[in-house]
Amino acid sequence: MTLNLISEHASYGGWVRFYSHESRECRSEMRFSVYLPPRAEKEKVPVLYYLAGLTCTEETFIMKAGAQRVAAELGMMLVAPDTSPRKARFPGDDASWDFGVAAGFYVDATQEPWSQNYRMYSYVTRELPEIVQSLGPARMDRQGIFGHSMGGHGALVCAFRNPQQFLSVSAFAPISSPSQVPWGIKAFSGYLGEDRNAWKQYDASELIRAQRYARPILIDQGSRDKFLEEQLKPDLFADAVRESGSELHFRMHPGYDHGYYFIATFMEDHLRHHGRQLLT
Amino acid sequence: MTLNLISEHASYGGWVRFYSHESRECRSEMRFSVYLPPRAEKEKVPVLYYLAGLTCTEETFIMKAGAQRVAAELGMMLVAPDTSPRKARFPGDDASWDFGVAAGFYVDATQEPWSQNYRMYSYVTRELPEIVQSLGPARMDRQGIFGHSMGGHGALVCAFRNPQQFLSVSAFAPISSPSQVPWGIKAFSGYLGEDRNAWKQYDASELIRAQRYARPILIDQGSRDKFLEEQLKPDLFADAVRESGSELHFRMHPGYDHGYYFIATFMEDHLRHHGRQLLT
Repeated sequence: MTLNLISEHASYGGWVRFYSHESRECRSEMRFSVYLPPRAEKEKVPVLYYLAGLTCTEETFIMKAGAQRVAAELGMMLVAPDTSPRKARFPGDDASWDFGVAAGFYVDATQEPWSQNYRMYSYVTRELPEIVQSLGPARMDRQGIFGHSMGGHGALVCAFRNPQQFLSVSAFAPISSPSQVPWGIKAFSGYLGEDRNAWKQYDASELIRAQRYARPILIDQGSRDKFLEEQLKPDLFADAVRESGSELHFRMHPGYDHGYYFIATFMEDHLRHHGRQLLT
Repeated sequence: MTLNLISEHASYGGWVRFYSHESRECRSEMRFSVYLPPRAEKEKVPVLYYLAGLTCTEETFIMKAGAQRVAAELGMMLVAPDTSPRKARFPGDDASWDFGVAAGFYVDATQEPWSQNYRMYSYVTRELPEIVQSLGPARMDRQGIFGHSMGGHGALVCAFRNPQQFLSVSAFAPISSPSQVPWGIKAFSGYLGEDRNAWKQYDASELIRAQRYARPILIDQGSRDKFLEEQLKPDLFADAVRESGSELHFRMHPGYDHGYYFIATFMEDHLRHHGRQLLT
């Protein structure tokens, strides 16, 4: 596997790097960004994956979220993949902003033609960690994951299905009951087909209802988020967490919306949350 | 004058707001962004203007530079205008990225057709402060200015020509001797004509050579900035500052480039620099 360094930028004493590579899982080019904190020059550091939301790329988080400052201080590596394959193209894949390109929903599609390339779940949980390990400074026994909106959904699903791999999880305004909301129903119908049993393995509320997650879960949500009522429905997820006996720290922030001004405001809290689990 | 609120976003306990208005100076629509820190709800606060560089808009700084966190803590209002008129169009105004649209260079053009609308110097130093005053919470006796690249040039020029108005100044990788470099020569020839005497009023090195600026000047520069040798030439500016007996804190940062990963890294230092002058 050849990893291409697209660009690198000094940032808070460390390095932001952008890579591309031919993906084994997605069978096309994939891109991701990395932040290497200064400490990574001397020793191995924990690694925290960030999954972005609809319409975003591997650049969105690293450019807008303001995470590097605290990641540098704590000594945590950040990794942010793109939100879907881009070079594998199918009819209609850019017809809507909530399905297809930049809307992979972090599932392994089973329906043609998407199943040929849209394998973001395996990409994030298996292939990307292998690549991260090959970079050198990541402590692979100290991985955490978080994300925003569609990426919050992805982070919760990846963590709940792989609790030995991801020792910490958090989310900003996640789609946490995808089987119950329009975005999720559209994506799961298209990628996974109409059999709703197949959806459960990608539904954070269904997953947490069936098991206890051993670490605290942090979720931040803005009260002025225009997607709150119809697409996010954090109450459904909170109910499921309660059933499982897991620990949820859910914070509703008056006045905040769905965007990166909201995310940046609470980024430090999330990084310290992950640091408490990963820097031990 | 009607001010249109385009959007607002909660951010670090305060508000990011985007406005548009018909500009008296530019005789067309102009846009700017504002950050109101939490303290602005209770009392008037200092105001710090940021001038962005080539290709940027009123969104670039507020989205990428990570300034709101420390502005919230210090209680400083931030204001970032667009880099040129956008709706007044002239033949060839988008033919190159370093002249015309998004490349106003913060001068009052004297050459046709640009002189009809490209009046960014008067916009930034007169019209925009009047609008900021009309918003309510700004302390107009506590204004500072900073910027990046072309906007660093603009900030130095605005401060040196209006030291009673702008009590603090700093810049990231500024074009500080525009009359001596290709970017500046192209812009000044086009906007101001071939008489180089007319350029001096917009050349930070010429301005500082002729007067002492009473406050410390902070400039940060990355050593891997690809524009350093040909366009930025900080040595020429440092020589001129020395002649004037002004106080320059020039910091060369190994490894950093010309972009917002560099700017965000040192943003806190700049805000505290302005805070020392404005929060007294």
